[in-house]
Amino acid sequence: MTEPASRWPLAALRLHLVTDAALCGPRGVEAVVAAAVRGGATCVQLREKQLETRLFVERARALKALLAPLGVPLIINDRLDIALAVNADGVHVGQSDMPPDEVRRILPHALIGLSVESAAQVRAAALSPVDYLGVSPVFSTPSKTDAAPALGLDGLRALRALTRLPLIAIGGIDLDNAAQVMAAGADGLAVVRALCAAPDPAAAAQALRRHTDPQPTP
Amino acid sequence: MTEPASRWPLAALRLHLVTDAALCGPRGVEAVVAAAVRGGATCVQLREKQLETRLFVERARALKALLAPLGVPLIINDRLDIALAVNADGVHVGQSDMPPDEVRRILPHALIGLSVESAAQVRAAALSPVDYLGVSPVFSTPSKTDAAPALGLDGLRALRALTRLPLIAIGGIDLDNAAQVMAAGADGLAVVRALCAAPDPAAAAQALRRHTDPQPTP
Repeated sequence: MTEPASRWPLAALRLHLVTDAALCGPRGVEAVVAAAVRGGATCVQLREKQLETRLFVERARALKALLAPLGVPLIINDRLDIALAVNADGVHVGQSDMPPDEVRRILPHALIGLSVESAAQVRAAALSPVDYLGVSPVFSTPSKTDAAPALGLDGLRALRALTRLPLIAIGGIDLDNAAQVMAAGADGLAVVRALCAAPDPAAAAQALRRHTDPQPTP
Repeated sequence: MTEPASRWPLAALRLHLVTDAALCGPRGVEAVVAAAVRGGATCVQLREKQLETRLFVERARALKALLAPLGVPLIINDRLDIALAVNADGVHVGQSDMPPDEVRRILPHALIGLSVESAAQVRAAALSPVDYLGVSPVFSTPSKTDAAPALGLDGLRALRALTRLPLIAIGGIDLDNAAQVMAAGADGLAVVRALCAAPDPAAAAQALRRHTDPQPTP
């Protein structure tokens, strides 16, 4: 696969933690992020659909302070304004969010991810200034209620054949299926539940990383 | 009062139309804006709390195309990202939205408005890089369900005494009370219902303008 257009290497996209404040529970988003990154999450996408802008800025700023010294990119879901305010490393947009061309124009050096759910969307993305595609949902998931039907591993393979952009698979991915997802052509995995709801997010991230990185042949 | 810090004169702030898509009804936001501006609305604040980002961008872009040739500023409520994407003239933020310092840093030339509901917030705004204060609610209003108790005309007068920033009054303002609100020290009026729900927004704007502008003494 081609390397992302931004300064981040493909290795930084291997294991995305996508946050869900409700699933993180009383321990809080920041604590879960800190643990997951300690265990091996390579990037963090802050996703807040309900939070007021000012609190969103505060949470994003706290994560940026936590992640920047570790060299782990912080990606903001949808909200370019939050990314600008805290100097985040990237923005992840869906098909109904800010068009990637606008994001690239306003943030020339950002890591830009785009969610795709179909062959038509993957093909259209070839003309889009994005660094990676978030392919979803690979499996059915309770984390996102407005998701399309699951692609399955065959669906993922079919999309893989259509693009040279890095593909990050998301949707129902856990320790049991991570290896198969990577084998089907994903360049990295994005998880919500498997880290945010894990009793030990550091251990869970460490275990997932065993499947996301090319393993040395014996 | 002092003139706004941005390039817009105080006269551009006399009569704000604050949009409410539901109140505009089937005729649509764009048609109501066009009519209200034809009647004399001097600026438009696009307020969308539910709309997906991409549709929000599209609506803002349509309004910008409509208003720019008329020299009427377009202000975006809360969403700096939308303002950036469509090159809007300003951003209006509430106490829970993006801090004005961040807005000013990212958009140095924007017209920035800040909502205030109390003496403490008016005093704090003296240190804030804003162009005007939106004082609310002057009267109780069904347009904003999370509003503080009504200030009344006496409350407005009390806040007027605390600041030299332009004060734009909002909340339950209509033709019957507009003159009193201006007399209590407002520099301009912002209305939702009195224009968005008006059968004839052009006529309503024209009538309101008779109260917002200094009248020639006979």
